[in-house]
Amino acid sequence: MGKIEEFNEYRSRMNERILSSDNLVIKRFFNLDTNAYAPGRLDVRTKEMIGLASSMVLRCDDCIKYHIGKCVETGLSPEEIEEVFSIALLVGGSIVIPHLRRAVEYLDEFKQQSS
Amino acid sequence: MGKIEEFNEYRSRMNERILSSDNLVIKRFFNLDTNAYAPGRLDVRTKEMIGLASSMVLRCDDCIKYHIGKCVETGLSPEEIEEVFSIALLVGGSIVIPHLRRAVEYLDEFKQQSS
Amino acid sequence: MGKIEEFNEYRSRMNERILSSDNLVIKRFFNLDTNAYAPGRLDVRTKEMIGLASSMVLRCDDCIKYHIGKCVETGLSPEEIEEVFSIALLVGGSIVIPHLRRAVEYLDEFKQQSS
Amino acid sequence: MGKIEEFNEYRSRMNERILSSDNLVIKRFFNLDTNAYAPGRLDVRTKEMIGLASSMVLRCDDCIKYHIGKCVETGLSPEEIEEVFSIALLVGGSIVIPHLRRAVEYLDEFKQQSS
Amino acid sequence: MGKIEEFNEYRSRMNERILSSDNLVIKRFFNLDTNAYAPGRLDVRTKEMIGLASSMVLRCDDCIKYHIGKCVETGLSPEEIEEVFSIALLVGGSIVIPHLRRAVEYLDEFKQQSS
Amino acid sequence: MGKIEEFNEYRSRMNERILSSDNLVIKRFFNLDTNAYAPGRLDVRTKEMIGLASSMVLRCDDCIKYHIGKCVETGLSPEEIEEVFSIALLVGGSIVIPHLRRAVEYLDEFKQQSS
Repeated sequence: MGKIEEFNEYRSRMNERILSSDNLVIKRFFNLDTNAYAPGRLDVRTKEMIGLASSMVLRCDDCIKYHIGKCVETGLSPEEIEEVFSIALLVGGSIVIPHLRRAVEYLDEFKQQSS
Repeated sequence: MGKIEEFNEYRSRMNERILSSDNLVIKRFFNLDTNAYAPGRLDVRTKEMIGLASSMVLRCDDCIKYHIGKCVETGLSPEEIEEVFSIALLVGGSIVIPHLRRAVEYLDEFKQQSS
Repeated sequence: MGKIEEFNEYRSRMNERILSSDNLVIKRFFNLDTNAYAPGRLDVRTKEMIGLASSMVLRCDDCIKYHIGKCVETGLSPEEIEEVFSIALLVGGSIVIPHLRRAVEYLDEFKQQSS
Repeated sequence: MGKIEEFNEYRSRMNERILSSDNLVIKRFFNLDTNAYAPGRLDVRTKEMIGLASSMVLRCDDCIKYHIGKCVETGLSPEEIEEVFSIALLVGGSIVIPHLRRAVEYLDEFKQQSS
Repeated sequence: MGKIEEFNEYRSRMNERILSSDNLVIKRFFNLDTNAYAPGRLDVRTKEMIGLASSMVLRCDDCIKYHIGKCVETGLSPEEIEEVFSIALLVGGSIVIPHLRRAVEYLDEFKQQSS
Repeated sequence: MGKIEEFNEYRSRMNERILSSDNLVIKRFFNLDTNAYAPGRLDVRTKEMIGLASSMVLRCDDCIKYHIGKCVETGLSPEEIEEVFSIALLVGGSIVIPHLRRAVEYLDEFKQQSS
């Protein structure tokens, strides 16, 4: 199983586990999270880039991976995604670099997959 | 002097003061900061929304104000800007709310100015 | 108008302003925020202490003020509230100290009010 | 060796290693850390919930694991612990979700152990 | 009263207020905070620069002000202090810039005072 | 391959990969990062200690590892490096402890290597 599948599998499995509990606040938060990225005044592509940059400045590897997947899905090119990275790097500083390394490595997995 | 002018005046004055010093790393960082938001693979509008959301999840009031000004300048409507806010709120959590209050108040200043 | 009233007035006014907009994600987030502190498996007192400590380690002055008000309302003594502060200080480090100063000052306002 | 034992073993071994050095500030900090969670005006259960929520909003996996263990020890039920999670999720935002996944997985280990 | 005196007065007054309470953990934390910057293997000058940079990347204005005062006291020149700023700016990113503006403004107060 | 080599190898490989892309902002940021730690008004040793403490309070394991390596290279003793750790621990709070454990473990690798 590749890195992308591994990430998606763990994420899906644990999300299901979490939603199987009876905590309403958590369930509604997950629901709201889905709604926030649905098409509205802004299109999905823009929203996913915003989600990606926010994840990067907050330095959350799993969130970065998730939004890279979504950005690729909406048809953004690697060069466009790297431009999102560049803004996040500038805003968040050199402390972002280790996350940038892992992000670029993960993005490269998508390139290999599609080639 | 209104809130917008006050913010811009202090920001310009202190940026000038900082750039008058002889620290090369700081000067080049400021220069790079300007370049990062220049049109590239992504347009300025998208970049400013990314900058705004990143500033909001990192809870930096002055950065939020600056990017609100830029978002308004690129022609984004208050409703579109609020949608950027909504994603940042969800990503960053309730801790973002006090910054959201000040951001909405600042955005309202632009509406009053243009009416 | 005292510091407590001033804080509450601005907070209420801007929350109303925010909820008057048509952004559903923001509205639902505010609603969820209210629900999270409602009595459940844990009582309100415990939840407010958790909210206070979380606000303090994340260094959000307005959130700290809000939860101090709520903690006082649920009948917690100043000494109990200070014990919440002490854990937050240890978890968050000396960077929390300026927020602790303002928190203690704000808590003292409640003491003066009730005396 | 299960996940809980593995975590505890590494934690104990390295804490001992750290305390074997001659740095007084570090030693006294560790000592103070222990004191902060001792029974005082607030009981240990409340303090551990505060420690857990603070760790979650600051997104520190090891700290979360440690306080989950302590919360279980003080007799808190999985449902009560999940309510602590829910407040931390709301305060800290969706960026907390990856840590929530690992926290729920770790909490489930305790359930399996006791069944 | 100038900005420096105002800051020092509030800080001293509230620290005294905090230390007048009976919370031992807080008192010992404050004590440890003083010890950490005492001369040891590293000299005070180096420690204060470390404290200043740490405060800046964590974006705590009051902490920055305090350590600027201490850095000036230990005889560091404005140019040396600005070099500490430059590293903090690079590590922490553009989100540090508003704090840098206020830091440079505060440092300039010391220059005016001594001239 | 030891932990130090493994870390350095991944870091070098991914940095090269990142610099092979055509994103100018990222390239210039990496360049600026190198310049910031070059000898200037402050010597390299002081700058590396500042970089290490900043990395620790921001809780970035890879950044910590990198600066530990550099601190060792400039001739700082383990005791001096531990004093940097102690300030970072106090500034950043108990949330830094898991990173301190891994930092001490990594620093011990250098001792074993040189013995």
